[in-house]
Amino acid sequence: MANVAGITVFRTGIAADWIDYNGHLRDAYYGLIVSYAIDALMQRVGLDEPYRNRTRCTLYTLEMHIRYLREVKSTATVAAEVRIIDADRKRIHACFDLMTEGQDDPAATAEVMLLHVQQAPAVSSQPFAAEIAAAIASLQQATASLPPSRFGSRQMQLPQR
Amino acid sequence: MANVAGITVFRTGIAADWIDYNGHLRDAYYGLIVSYAIDALMQRVGLDEPYRNRTRCTLYTLEMHIRYLREVKSTATVAAEVRIIDADRKRIHACFDLMTEGQDDPAATAEVMLLHVQQAPAVSSQPFAAEIAAAIASLQQATASLPPSRFGSRQMQLPQR
Repeated sequence: MANVAGITVFRTGIAADWIDYNGHLRDAYYGLIVSYAIDALMQRVGLDEPYRNRTRCTLYTLEMHIRYLREVKSTATVAAEVRIIDADRKRIHACFDLMTEGQDDPAATAEVMLLHVQQAPAVSSQPFAAEIAAAIASLQQATASLPPSRFGSRQMQLPQR
Repeated sequence: MANVAGITVFRTGIAADWIDYNGHLRDAYYGLIVSYAIDALMQRVGLDEPYRNRTRCTLYTLEMHIRYLREVKSTATVAAEVRIIDADRKRIHACFDLMTEGQDDPAATAEVMLLHVQQAPAVSSQPFAAEIAAAIASLQQATASLPPSRFGSRQMQLPQR
């Protein structure tokens, strides 16, 4: 019963051209699933197309740290579960666990830092509208009791010899 | 004169479907360019298709930390420059700077940890063959005098309030 994870925001099969010469999901396409999961998170908190068109505001990804824990094969279905780790007036710090069927542990985790940006007339970071901030806080609250991911971002280094 | 960076191993234009609704390169496709640059790095140190077929060994990506520093537009050409940060018997710790024309600073940096894995008969990590280890050491030597990337992997957190 390890499935004490986040809220599923996105689910996908594996496209044929996401498989590389090693016969499994290419590293970058784990990132594409995370990217689509960020889109789904945006929908969920109200940063949808009407909002984006009205305000010219969107999210930019500042950082993404992916930890690859298991191979994903072409027949898999991947569910992206989100935790809101933290948020402030302009930023969302979130973690996604990529889950595959029949496995209690994630196939990968991705931690991201997202910034609310107005794209026009000039590119500038902007505070979230109040209703967006409230939706983010609500989602954060909903995942607040979950344990933190065991596989977060970190400074990489080789194992000490 | 900021171009004191790594060795260019891969260069690409931007495919139309890599552009997202924000009008710039989608976050995940920076990662795809890095993934192709890892393929090019493999070629360069002898982890090519004949080697992979002969030994059943390849590289698996264990971690990738991308820092997005600038937007990349559809007309850009991106050059991936590599630094070998460190290596051991089975692993390569590398950094890629994604450079665009006319800019001295990278549009993004990606740090990766790569593991040499034999895929058959069972998946297991394996030491590099001697000639591969020598090629990695030579490439590491060639980038040893360069300053470390200013934008490496790290534990993410919100700016302190």
